[in-house]
Amino acid sequence: MNNQQTIRAGIIGGAGYTGGETIRLLLNHPSVTISFVHSRSNAGKPLYAVHADLLGETEQVFSDAIHHEVDVLFLCLGHGESKKWMEANPLPAHIKVIDLSQDFRLGETAGDREFVYGLPECNREAIRTAQNIANPGCFATAIQLGLLPLAKAGKLKEVHTTGITGSTGAGQSLQSTSHFTWRANNVSTYKVLTHQHLKEIRRTLSTLQSSFAEDINFVPVRGDYPRGIWITSYLDCDLTLDEAVLLYKDYYATHPFTTVSDKQIDLKQVVNTNKVLIQLEKVGNKLVIHSIEDNLIKGASGQAVQNMNLLFGLEETAGLKLKSIVF
Amino acid sequence: MNNQQTIRAGIIGGAGYTGGETIRLLLNHPSVTISFVHSRSNAGKPLYAVHADLLGETEQVFSDAIHHEVDVLFLCLGHGESKKWMEANPLPAHIKVIDLSQDFRLGETAGDREFVYGLPECNREAIRTAQNIANPGCFATAIQLGLLPLAKAGKLKEVHTTGITGSTGAGQSLQSTSHFTWRANNVSTYKVLTHQHLKEIRRTLSTLQSSFAEDINFVPVRGDYPRGIWITSYLDCDLTLDEAVLLYKDYYATHPFTTVSDKQIDLKQVVNTNKVLIQLEKVGNKLVIHSIEDNLIKGASGQAVQNMNLLFGLEETAGLKLKSIVF
Amino acid sequence: MNNQQTIRAGIIGGAGYTGGETIRLLLNHPSVTISFVHSRSNAGKPLYAVHADLLGETEQVFSDAIHHEVDVLFLCLGHGESKKWMEANPLPAHIKVIDLSQDFRLGETAGDREFVYGLPECNREAIRTAQNIANPGCFATAIQLGLLPLAKAGKLKEVHTTGITGSTGAGQSLQSTSHFTWRANNVSTYKVLTHQHLKEIRRTLSTLQSSFAEDINFVPVRGDYPRGIWITSYLDCDLTLDEAVLLYKDYYATHPFTTVSDKQIDLKQVVNTNKVLIQLEKVGNKLVIHSIEDNLIKGASGQAVQNMNLLFGLEETAGLKLKSIVF
Amino acid sequence: MNNQQTIRAGIIGGAGYTGGETIRLLLNHPSVTISFVHSRSNAGKPLYAVHADLLGETEQVFSDAIHHEVDVLFLCLGHGESKKWMEANPLPAHIKVIDLSQDFRLGETAGDREFVYGLPECNREAIRTAQNIANPGCFATAIQLGLLPLAKAGKLKEVHTTGITGSTGAGQSLQSTSHFTWRANNVSTYKVLTHQHLKEIRRTLSTLQSSFAEDINFVPVRGDYPRGIWITSYLDCDLTLDEAVLLYKDYYATHPFTTVSDKQIDLKQVVNTNKVLIQLEKVGNKLVIHSIEDNLIKGASGQAVQNMNLLFGLEETAGLKLKSIVF
Repeated sequence: MNNQQTIRAGIIGGAGYTGGETIRLLLNHPSVTISFVHSRSNAGKPLYAVHADLLGETEQVFSDAIHHEVDVLFLCLGHGESKKWMEANPLPAHIKVIDLSQDFRLGETAGDREFVYGLPECNREAIRTAQNIANPGCFATAIQLGLLPLAKAGKLKEVHTTGITGSTGAGQSLQSTSHFTWRANNVSTYKVLTHQHLKEIRRTLSTLQSSFAEDINFVPVRGDYPRGIWITSYLDCDLTLDEAVLLYKDYYATHPFTTVSDKQIDLKQVVNTNKVLIQLEKVGNKLVIHSIEDNLIKGASGQAVQNMNLLFGLEETAGLKLKSIVF
Repeated sequence: MNNQQTIRAGIIGGAGYTGGETIRLLLNHPSVTISFVHSRSNAGKPLYAVHADLLGETEQVFSDAIHHEVDVLFLCLGHGESKKWMEANPLPAHIKVIDLSQDFRLGETAGDREFVYGLPECNREAIRTAQNIANPGCFATAIQLGLLPLAKAGKLKEVHTTGITGSTGAGQSLQSTSHFTWRANNVSTYKVLTHQHLKEIRRTLSTLQSSFAEDINFVPVRGDYPRGIWITSYLDCDLTLDEAVLLYKDYYATHPFTTVSDKQIDLKQVVNTNKVLIQLEKVGNKLVIHSIEDNLIKGASGQAVQNMNLLFGLEETAGLKLKSIVF
Repeated sequence: MNNQQTIRAGIIGGAGYTGGETIRLLLNHPSVTISFVHSRSNAGKPLYAVHADLLGETEQVFSDAIHHEVDVLFLCLGHGESKKWMEANPLPAHIKVIDLSQDFRLGETAGDREFVYGLPECNREAIRTAQNIANPGCFATAIQLGLLPLAKAGKLKEVHTTGITGSTGAGQSLQSTSHFTWRANNVSTYKVLTHQHLKEIRRTLSTLQSSFAEDINFVPVRGDYPRGIWITSYLDCDLTLDEAVLLYKDYYATHPFTTVSDKQIDLKQVVNTNKVLIQLEKVGNKLVIHSIEDNLIKGASGQAVQNMNLLFGLEETAGLKLKSIVF
Repeated sequence: MNNQQTIRAGIIGGAGYTGGETIRLLLNHPSVTISFVHSRSNAGKPLYAVHADLLGETEQVFSDAIHHEVDVLFLCLGHGESKKWMEANPLPAHIKVIDLSQDFRLGETAGDREFVYGLPECNREAIRTAQNIANPGCFATAIQLGLLPLAKAGKLKEVHTTGITGSTGAGQSLQSTSHFTWRANNVSTYKVLTHQHLKEIRRTLSTLQSSFAEDINFVPVRGDYPRGIWITSYLDCDLTLDEAVLLYKDYYATHPFTTVSDKQIDLKQVVNTNKVLIQLEKVGNKLVIHSIEDNLIKGASGQAVQNMNLLFGLEETAGLKLKSIVF
């Protein structure tokens, strides 16, 4: 497909956070038309009835029908729902599927559909020829991008990781930990050392460094802001800082969204973009790796669009040159 | 009653925000014992199961029984619930009642119980001899304290008021406008020019200045922070700034919680205290009055305790010398 | 000029907030090349040394030289600095100037250069043929867009306006009111009823309704968030709500960035976009108008780019279809 | 000294954050009179000219004179300044000194004055009979309280610690990382694995477990809120969760400010109080310890007052039963 063609996209589960971000990105994508946005509970309403910021940008409405005159489907459903949806909705072979849930990240299949793990900085060539993509988790993306070069170099040892996420990571359901009064100015942790993303992280890293058997110790923290993930990982490492920086810059040289910073980084450098910034430090024998992303974009919908670009032979960055929020 | 005596207090509806703040204040009050904290849904649980910050301070549990060996009851129920509760729970005459809802602020009675409007800066003498108190609304308190001296001087004309409130003003129920992801960094308004507190405000002001018939135009704003109310009112006024400042300082000279500031004020000067700060400006013919409070303390539970102090002949400030959060 | 041509832009004062936003917008603009970004103090450094979010997007450096092979200059200087700069730097006639300061908004000239007030929703035709643009102030833009249709209909009377602004409105200088510890969770006001933007607002409105002589009473509030301006204005008005909505929708029908919402609006609908949303309410005899914008985009750099598009005959929305931050 | 006596306190460096918090606590302390608050740059001004929340609470002014009719001096000076001050200001023997800087935490002396490390949960008996106190650092307090019981039991091994601090931890000076626009919604780290508090932490822990030689790996994070420190530490440990909980509860049984929570904790449970809450988890072989405090109170001024109470034989909790901010 060349860049003049238009990809017809359908969105399943368009009323949630990742559905909304996918809509926002595709509305401005130069090579995509949104054929339908499916949402049972909102069928007939304009998109802006749910995603209020779209008022003035589109009059498109949510649909309760799914048709097959599309080239790609984005599944923006809850974890566990994608598998059920795929079983209940057999698709013709010409439709490619990009699933944003965790249902197909560990090698699961849907009928005869196999899913490639959609982390372009690791799997780009496989993605280009895939039919189905399992889009990585938000924490998983940022943690892996901080470790991939080490894994490829066989340098992984036990890893200690702090991860802080914005509230959008918990979705739009109302719960006590999403109440503004509770979360404002607050800090808490959850799933300490047991977060479910550790499985997909280990799966990728083991592919690159089969000898890696030590723990990844991950402390997930709820931050009191809406968007963005901060990761700091450290491990014993015999590389000097210069060697490590070179290793990372080489690894990411051809990847347009991942940049190694020579200066201290802060989260808002990447919020509302598809970028990942990485910064390295060396303290004694330990290599410290900071990696940051917007959890809804590079950690979800932006990476899904990046995968779509690769699936259809478009520029990897098409529709993803986003203005950061910065302040 | 002298300060050596202990007042026995019961709290009805102790699981909500104002119930929690009332508990916090009474736990440290030198002359009060909390006899029971009633909450049907939490009976048997420790207070800290709901008010987690009380862990380490008290082992008291919620009760599902109400007994009459108390001197005062604080009703911390939702609007409309206090009236029902009073009807369903006849009380012996020796129990004083302080109701934090809006059910008795406009002259309503519960059987033969009449309620004094509990704004000490206006009604202190009446409160001292009252049996029942209707505790003012949060916005109503801050707006009235900004206007009382003018009303007493017969200087009220049409008033234009902006009011910004923290999220605690909306209570602890989960709703879309209390979702952290929505409210963080956001601004919105509600009940513009129609807020229900206008009724109790007019009622008080008319008592002081019977000629006052113009509008109070009130724009309530949802702020993206948890605690505190900011009020800016302005009106045509023939007083000079010096005259106005003198009028206000005279009016509040004997009131321990209300202070006129000669410098620009900011909201965090009063957060987590029972104080109200007032600042005046004169621009052309218009007098500008800023008045600020903590909506849960001076705007609710702190004022309730202040009223209790007056009802029982204690120092008005007993238990209310609170450390501000300041930062 | 047709859309295939490339406009060469220079930016003067590229290290500040509006300079940074202008760079961000122009980097992704399909018809613009940034010829130079001038900053004396940062000459030789990459843009991302100051605007850290640009790391990975451009290697361009700040320049200390100004050359004349450009089609347009954006002056992103402090108030008072633009006038001095224009005097010290005579420009050839072919260069158009878009000034983001307040120096030329009230009819001031720079030599024989006259400036058109760059509010496209009021002055679009004059802008298309202008050589120099005085870009409106952030508060001024949002307040005027809330009042223009009334002014055109001759319906303006005394106006009462609350305006809340994010911290970016105060620029990047370090001062006590920009300290995080102070501003977080805080509210304060400044320049109450005396804000300098009132002059440019009156100037525009008087053009549309020459009879308008009453006050615009404006209470500016410092909000505890970085981006966005919320305006609520109200005034006596004999239009019904339906009539007012029709008036506004008609007025803005051909303006791509201004939309009248039938539902309650909230600030984050427009943050990080060039959009303005307006919502109307009628309470008694009073018409209430809410109008919201991103202060740095529609209130500054985005409007500057919108003006550039008009000056050069481009689509008014070119480069301005921005993904909102929404959360 | 019995509780009826009044301790006369002087405060040196009363214009900073810890000076202000010390003033706030002592103003409400039942057994203390503030003799003077020294601040060269603010001499003659009322305390509320700097600490604006004190308006209405005290008319006391800053002093530029230091006299010796006091029982205790609180040094609230910057790091490095306390040592200089002690050298320049010889004190009579009857004055006790509580220094809040890091100048005397590692065994340093001032003339013949020796300093006891003022962590009551470790050193209470030594503090009771001390003349001079080196008040612990904010991070150091929270980290140590999470590890003391393990150290006493000889169970410390290499520790991995994440610490998140509010902006007040960085003081009131204006710098780019304290600008609201930068810090709001942002995350960053600093002094990763090299924070200066590690020295005093090691010093204490080595006293309790002399065999402990492994690293404490500490990742300090800047949070986007003003107050509070969150610590999560983990290490290999052969205790079961029940055994660990028992160990901690036993250790802290007689310490009034430190409580072990059986439920998940969150930071706002302790903000604006002198409390520390600890929560334990066991995952595989790893023991996870969460410990939280208010950095300005238990991490600074509150602990200083707690030490003062011990020095003078008062109740340890005198003046420290503080209402939490909770929301």
